[in-house]
Amino acid sequence: SGLVLVKNPHLDLMEEDILYHLDLGTKTHNLPAMFGDIKFVCVGGSPNRMRAFAQLMRRELGLAGPGQDAADTCGGSDRYAMYRAGPVLAISHGMGIPSISIMLHELIKLLHHAKCRDVTIIRMGTSGGLGIEAGSVVITDTAMDSSFQPRFEQVVLGDVVVRSTELDKGLAEELLACSRDVPGFPTLMGHTMCTYDFYEGQGRLDGALCSFSSEKKLEYLRRAYEAGVRNIEMESTAFAALCGLCGLKGESCRFHLL
Amino acid sequence: SGLVLVKNPHLDLMEEDILYHLDLGTKTHNLPAMFGDIKFVCVGGSPNRMRAFAQLMRRELGLAGPGQDAADTCGGSDRYAMYRAGPVLAISHGMGIPSISIMLHELIKLLHHAKCRDVTIIRMGTSGGLGIEAGSVVITDTAMDSSFQPRFEQVVLGDVVVRSTELDKGLAEELLACSRDVPGFPTLMGHTMCTYDFYEGQGRLDGALCSFSSEKKLEYLRRAYEAGVRNIEMESTAFAALCGLCGLKGESCRFHLL
Repeated sequence: SGLVLVKNPHLDLMEEDILYHLDLGTKTHNLPAMFGDIKFVCVGGSPNRMRAFAQLMRRELGLAGPGQDAADTCGGSDRYAMYRAGPVLAISHGMGIPSISIMLHELIKLLHHAKCRDVTIIRMGTSGGLGIEAGSVVITDTAMDSSFQPRFEQVVLGDVVVRSTELDKGLAEELLACSRDVPGFPTLMGHTMCTYDFYEGQGRLDGALCSFSSEKKLEYLRRAYEAGVRNIEMESTAFAALCGLCGLKGESCRFHLL
Repeated sequence: SGLVLVKNPHLDLMEEDILYHLDLGTKTHNLPAMFGDIKFVCVGGSPNRMRAFAQLMRRELGLAGPGQDAADTCGGSDRYAMYRAGPVLAISHGMGIPSISIMLHELIKLLHHAKCRDVTIIRMGTSGGLGIEAGSVVITDTAMDSSFQPRFEQVVLGDVVVRSTELDKGLAEELLACSRDVPGFPTLMGHTMCTYDFYEGQGRLDGALCSFSSEKKLEYLRRAYEAGVRNIEMESTAFAALCGLCGLKGESCRFHLL
């Protein structure tokens, strides 16, 4: 049916569903009227970048004059920022798996309550590249954990549940095809490694703590490269797992800065 | 000596240290002049709350008229917000362990570069209470993981390193003593459980995914209570581990909302 799935039998029994961190709710807002026509959701870490992206989308879609700005739909919450541009919704998710997970749980419920159909979700942003040209865009085929395994370990009531981190292959191919029309951005498909930490977890030598040598760092990154990893970031495994379970066609594209 | 420690031999060899997510650096800013007199750092998830807290501090310390606002010291970054109020620095850390870890790495380096001495760091915010009166404040004696163990597992180059999550007992006692002068806020000391997820990880029945019954949820929370847990949140283990390793006297106080 193309509808977004929630896999929670308790939700039907609730009189009201408050999407606390988005400052929205089923009793306070008419979610089908506000969001029922959404077809694309683009998410990224930084609120300012998501606002800039929504402005670009509005210009591209001929929806706004140059002076007009998109309003933040989560106005009452400072946890995330959300902007509309026609059928495109742009939302920030902060940094790291816990932060994106809270947003995705509430976004998926939002799309479900709004009865959206055939929604595509794309994660955008910067990442650390591995053995690739600076300025490249990596389209993720599979998200991997810090042991180079294609899995996401979710703790449910103290027990570890392992989830798949496969992303939509058709969508990845479509995005790769689109990239061929955009000159100046070398684009490739590869595995993306997702860590819980930016400094020690990604082998950086400039955190407040660092117990390893430059050689050990390079050896770890070489092993990651040999396992097919082409970039490193902090949200892709949770993103792939949640989108996959809830029937959202999802893809992750990261721009490799340095 | 009371100085904040960094445990990273590589830092001394670097010509410049850029605190990227705070939009500060050792070459672009005179960090000792800007921050050398800081004695207290208060951190919390929400940028708006940290701004409001800094305003309160400025009024309490007689530093500002009612119309004056504190300026965001991380003005060029939208990752975190940072405000000064005399010797007090207030910084937001977003949600979850990865987000607070990035901030703490850069904050610890900031305090180190600024040559701050005898700094106390206090984490504030809301949390889910366990078997306690709504509106209570929990002062954490020990941070625990979702298996009720007093440990923080940090992945370093793909390997798990286990770290202690003990907090400063003297500071906890001091804060508890202070609370006796503030009527209307029942305050207690207890263990704090830290999870990587707000919905499935904390036994909530209203996420996009929920595979457990209300009974299983209550059983898990009862086991947590029996292990001494009095509140649940998403940052305390990483906070305790990083502060402990870097010689920062740290404590976590959470206000239990509902």
